[in-house]
Amino acid sequence: MNTTKKKLFVITGVAGLLGSTLLPRILSKKNSIVVGIDNLKLGKIKFIKRFLNKNNFFFLKAGLHRRINSSKFKQILAKNQLEEIWHLAANSDIPSGINNPRVDYRDTFLTTFNILNFVKPFLNLNSKIIFSSTSAIYGNVGKKIHEKSAPLMPESNYGSMKLASEAFISSYSFSNKVRSFIFRFPNVIGANLTHGVIFDLSKKILSNDKYLKVLGNGEQCKPYSSADEIVRCIIYLTRKKHFNLVNYYNIGTNDKGVKVKNIVKLLIKRFNYKKNVVFEKNIRGWKGDIPFYSYSTKKMNKMGYKFKLNSLSALKKTIKNISKKTLF
Amino acid sequence: MNTTKKKLFVITGVAGLLGSTLLPRILSKKNSIVVGIDNLKLGKIKFIKRFLNKNNFFFLKAGLHRRINSSKFKQILAKNQLEEIWHLAANSDIPSGINNPRVDYRDTFLTTFNILNFVKPFLNLNSKIIFSSTSAIYGNVGKKIHEKSAPLMPESNYGSMKLASEAFISSYSFSNKVRSFIFRFPNVIGANLTHGVIFDLSKKILSNDKYLKVLGNGEQCKPYSSADEIVRCIIYLTRKKHFNLVNYYNIGTNDKGVKVKNIVKLLIKRFNYKKNVVFEKNIRGWKGDIPFYSYSTKKMNKMGYKFKLNSLSALKKTIKNISKKTLF
Repeated sequence: MNTTKKKLFVITGVAGLLGSTLLPRILSKKNSIVVGIDNLKLGKIKFIKRFLNKNNFFFLKAGLHRRINSSKFKQILAKNQLEEIWHLAANSDIPSGINNPRVDYRDTFLTTFNILNFVKPFLNLNSKIIFSSTSAIYGNVGKKIHEKSAPLMPESNYGSMKLASEAFISSYSFSNKVRSFIFRFPNVIGANLTHGVIFDLSKKILSNDKYLKVLGNGEQCKPYSSADEIVRCIIYLTRKKHFNLVNYYNIGTNDKGVKVKNIVKLLIKRFNYKKNVVFEKNIRGWKGDIPFYSYSTKKMNKMGYKFKLNSLSALKKTIKNISKKTLF
Repeated sequence: MNTTKKKLFVITGVAGLLGSTLLPRILSKKNSIVVGIDNLKLGKIKFIKRFLNKNNFFFLKAGLHRRINSSKFKQILAKNQLEEIWHLAANSDIPSGINNPRVDYRDTFLTTFNILNFVKPFLNLNSKIIFSSTSAIYGNVGKKIHEKSAPLMPESNYGSMKLASEAFISSYSFSNKVRSFIFRFPNVIGANLTHGVIFDLSKKILSNDKYLKVLGNGEQCKPYSSADEIVRCIIYLTRKKHFNLVNYYNIGTNDKGVKVKNIVKLLIKRFNYKKNVVFEKNIRGWKGDIPFYSYSTKKMNKMGYKFKLNSLSALKKTIKNISKKTLF
């Protein structure tokens, strides 16, 4: 019987863009074991299919908004050394939570509350909590957003339930003396997209709709970072020595971003789309949309990390890599 | 049949210290009708008993952590003009939420989420949301706390669930175009105390315990404001013109406060207590306790409001007014 303790990594939202980008990196670590959880609502099993037969990977299909009820998961927690909890599960589709605040409450806040309460008995002095937060917690700041921007005024339920999650992580860290890292990033993109402007527009184009309807007037201009670099940056930063229990970072590119109308142009070219494009009149794509923002990443830069791809390069790479196979 | 619309005020936590202090002021307004809600867990019916027979007051005993199910409340909402929602209900007893995060999640966060979702169909352009938040959302700032202090790092679940509530109020305000006021205050005291250091110690003294056990070493030094002034200040500020949808204020005294050991002395004198007093060794009264802080109230002062009673005067007044009758 093998009784050696392995290093246990828990990844929630493992079948999403970030989770599926992260998974192979962790699985290939020496002596690692991974529990990956996803409700497969936005995440897709095909993004993690090739890892399902690895014997250091246990996949749990579960909605974390409910109390967790898996004896296997508990067993793995009890037998191994809990290293990191990457809590990436959330409702990532902002517009879907606009008219029904229960969507973000359930899929973003409750998932945070439940996973942390579940793993609590298994924490050790070196355990780390890693949380994917968002620029949306700041609201419409109007100038460069840095970690000390305040007061926080999220406009979308997406942003507010991410902030509520941050709040709980903070008191949880202090109550349980466990270190946490809160990463606030702008739009994350990559081949395994599950939501967002590129995902939506590409699906419309490939579904051969009568015309391409764009949310907002196309002048919205936001930064984009690749999932691959976000994951690399988080791994880099969380390995550095930190003295605070709770640590906040803005991460991502710090350029002004790319206008939605230019993303539309890139997609039209990529898919050789011939039909009409219709923009709305409003600058906001939806209620609670923040049409412009730019990021101060000085804190991240001071720690020695810089993003290699700017927004435009990240977009071009993603648009090249997406396909009918990844999108549907 | 009287079909005139009245001005409707909803007060959650109406039988608590702030709620019961506010209630007579609102009931005496011309053409007002009040729905007061309380689960009577910390609040006490005796604090509002003399108003129960007023015909412009409807009292609903309900725990707002559950979905609200009162046809009478709905009827009153439908028939009148919803002016203000004073959301004061919360778990106000910080130490009780330390070992069980569900206490603050349920009694502080869920109450906010449910009451706001319930009244949503009845909001009008002039409706205001008034929320009692706390200095605990800031965490251990280490210097004068102002509204722009950041990042927010609550250490107690009490603080984190108040911050989660603030977050939801923010996105709710933007989603529904309704104005909200978030008041962050330090310890609030008055004759109708339901929790806190004076409440706990006085009850111990009057219960004639073998000795008086004080949480912490007595050196903790925090500001105290009277419920009466807090209510007056909120009424004053919310009547001023505001352009932002979401408005944040630190309110209260801005002195450095009074040490717990001096509060103990005042109580011993008040109740002529003869037994031993035992302090703990730790400066923190409980996990997540913030032993020192002081407040910048410049924003409130600029709007023309100043607190008349400093911490010591507010304490003396409260200690004079409490009695076996109010405490038990």
